[in-house]
Amino acid sequence: MADYSVNGITAAKGFLAAGIHCGIKREKRDLALVVSEFPAVCAGVFTRNKVAAACVDVDKFQMTASPYVRAIVVNSGNANACTGAQGLADAWEMVDAVAGAMNIDRNEVFVSSTGVIGRTLPMEKLRAGIAAIVPIVSSEGHEAAADAILTTDTFSKEYAVQVMVQGAEVWIGGMSKGSGMIAPNMATMLAFITTDAAISSSLLQTAVKRATDLSFNRITVDGDTSTNDMAIVMANGAAHNSELTSIDDPGYREFFDGLVEVFVKLSKLIVLDGEGATKFIEVCVKNAATEAAAEIAARSIANSNLVKTAIHGEDANWGRILAAAGYSGIDFDPARTEIFFGDVPILRQNYGIDFSEEAALGVLKKKEITITVDLHQGDQSAVFWTCDLSKEYITINANYRT
Amino acid sequence: MADYSVNGITAAKGFLAAGIHCGIKREKRDLALVVSEFPAVCAGVFTRNKVAAACVDVDKFQMTASPYVRAIVVNSGNANACTGAQGLADAWEMVDAVAGAMNIDRNEVFVSSTGVIGRTLPMEKLRAGIAAIVPIVSSEGHEAAADAILTTDTFSKEYAVQVMVQGAEVWIGGMSKGSGMIAPNMATMLAFITTDAAISSSLLQTAVKRATDLSFNRITVDGDTSTNDMAIVMANGAAHNSELTSIDDPGYREFFDGLVEVFVKLSKLIVLDGEGATKFIEVCVKNAATEAAAEIAARSIANSNLVKTAIHGEDANWGRILAAAGYSGIDFDPARTEIFFGDVPILRQNYGIDFSEEAALGVLKKKEITITVDLHQGDQSAVFWTCDLSKEYITINANYRT
Repeated sequence: MADYSVNGITAAKGFLAAGIHCGIKREKRDLALVVSEFPAVCAGVFTRNKVAAACVDVDKFQMTASPYVRAIVVNSGNANACTGAQGLADAWEMVDAVAGAMNIDRNEVFVSSTGVIGRTLPMEKLRAGIAAIVPIVSSEGHEAAADAILTTDTFSKEYAVQVMVQGAEVWIGGMSKGSGMIAPNMATMLAFITTDAAISSSLLQTAVKRATDLSFNRITVDGDTSTNDMAIVMANGAAHNSELTSIDDPGYREFFDGLVEVFVKLSKLIVLDGEGATKFIEVCVKNAATEAAAEIAARSIANSNLVKTAIHGEDANWGRILAAAGYSGIDFDPARTEIFFGDVPILRQNYGIDFSEEAALGVLKKKEITITVDLHQGDQSAVFWTCDLSKEYITINANYRT
Repeated sequence: MADYSVNGITAAKGFLAAGIHCGIKREKRDLALVVSEFPAVCAGVFTRNKVAAACVDVDKFQMTASPYVRAIVVNSGNANACTGAQGLADAWEMVDAVAGAMNIDRNEVFVSSTGVIGRTLPMEKLRAGIAAIVPIVSSEGHEAAADAILTTDTFSKEYAVQVMVQGAEVWIGGMSKGSGMIAPNMATMLAFITTDAAISSSLLQTAVKRATDLSFNRITVDGDTSTNDMAIVMANGAAHNSELTSIDDPGYREFFDGLVEVFVKLSKLIVLDGEGATKFIEVCVKNAATEAAAEIAARSIANSNLVKTAIHGEDANWGRILAAAGYSGIDFDPARTEIFFGDVPILRQNYGIDFSEEAALGVLKKKEITITVDLHQGDQSAVFWTCDLSKEYITINANYRT
């Protein structure tokens, strides 16, 4: 599997993109457009928050209204959430403006917004912006597009891989944005992925759902989703492999592995850019009774403010890690549990705690830290990704709106 | 109902206390003892964390081993958690040392510890400390005892009320400690309450459980309990009211209301002393379909790092409040929801958001802030208490262990 982080959302054949400044933000780019030159099938996962933004409602409708998608328009700087009937009308107007300018069916356009909640969109700026962006999409536009979807992110997030599907070169590429919440209880997480694979709509949805469970939902953006979270994948078949329709088809495994690699990379980039983050933390719970139990424990540890602050302070406070597993709700035996920082054992079975503070500090000083919790109970595991909790997080979030 | 915050744990007749420095901490008091001059019935609630400290195991055993309790010994500076068989032996040795010095049954002594996890207790210091503290308990010892149970708390927490039960003057008083976690996922919360009411053991347990649900469990210390959390109530009957045995008994309502008042006050004091807290936040979710739904939504809002940081920054970010209710899992209609800061409407139905930033800021500038979320759905409500999330929290927790 080749590994190219270049060309992101336009790595796959037949996809074009652009990103411009239309005036929602003061200076930065705030409008992106991704276009498929051919009708593409589409799969998506959306926030489960009861307070869903207008774009989520529109896109869920679009998923059922047309089997194909041609374009995704995204604005940053304003989430168009909690904006009621006006917000819904504005989201549809964005859709119609794109469909009109591209002369395509209105049900083939998706819309996405991210930014401040509770303010209506500046539609005059968006109308002008959409008119300006439609003519300039290109295969070089991926960088500008990836930049235009950011909010408090400090860098843009792109990745692409090439895989071989039945002898055909298939590209899978995409872009994402976080806002990199430490425990992302309201970070809007957006991800847009394109592929030139030929794949049926239903198999793509199956693949996207499972890949999401192994990636975006492992950075704790699932239970605690924002009003606007979404991941959308477009597949336009331009690679001309014979269409994948079943998980047993030759080449599906290669496609799926590539999709997971892109999803995981875009997830990790979100965590790496966590608000105020100084360290990247991988939490691996292994030898659990079930994958679900491993995931629950890993999530609990990855969500713990106390674990995150201890890692921030480079403090080998394994007690907080064990306690976070303890209150996660899963059944396990603390006395059998072992904890490692990197390869360094910190807690042995039966509360063996004669670890080397020096060796532990050697791991904790690094920028990327793996915490392994071995429950010695079964053979299932789960990995979560998170970051430390710093004072910078408070600074960023104390006055976000004003 | 009279309101006296003086005399805390020794306000009720027949209770004595003391607090001393025995050497677990460098300088501060670290050992407390509470004694009833008469056999007392006892009720308690304990952490549900799978990783429970030795003292929790011992006390749960004591609850079943004897109908009476005479003493509670508490050390701070060391949680005696994750210390295995040695920890359990040490906790029992503390019990036996107190029972021996007082010449009472070993099953009439409770033990409690708070502090760092994973280190065994310095038993030589504790033996000497227990020998020293038993002879000096007095009705003036409440202040020293309340001081000796603290960890990162910045002030001691005491409260007492007097209520009339069937013409008898009944006192209910107590002390607590937090460590005042913002979202207390591993704060050890301890509360010890004494009363001279005559009440049956089973009715006391009923009262304590319900009072806990309305107080300590409303500062989110229930799902996310630490390894050591406990609240223990001793009732010694010295007020000589005729024994309360049923919730229908005359005087029970007065007793219960007094108990709730003490529990709520001790809970609020924990939040007021939240680590790094600069503001006290009351979250009231009202007109929910059920009390359980109101509680779930209030807890979700009170636990949100983004809500807490916004309040810290005095930012009227109601979107984060609505979104936290949205991902709490309860079913409600966001468009019907209203949000108030104090008396100031911030969000009206159908996303009416033309609020006065000035009026909102007037509320947010205060030290105590009430957030009311009106779901306009039913007639049930729940209140939660929390505090803001500040940089000071990070400082306190980044290097707690070292």
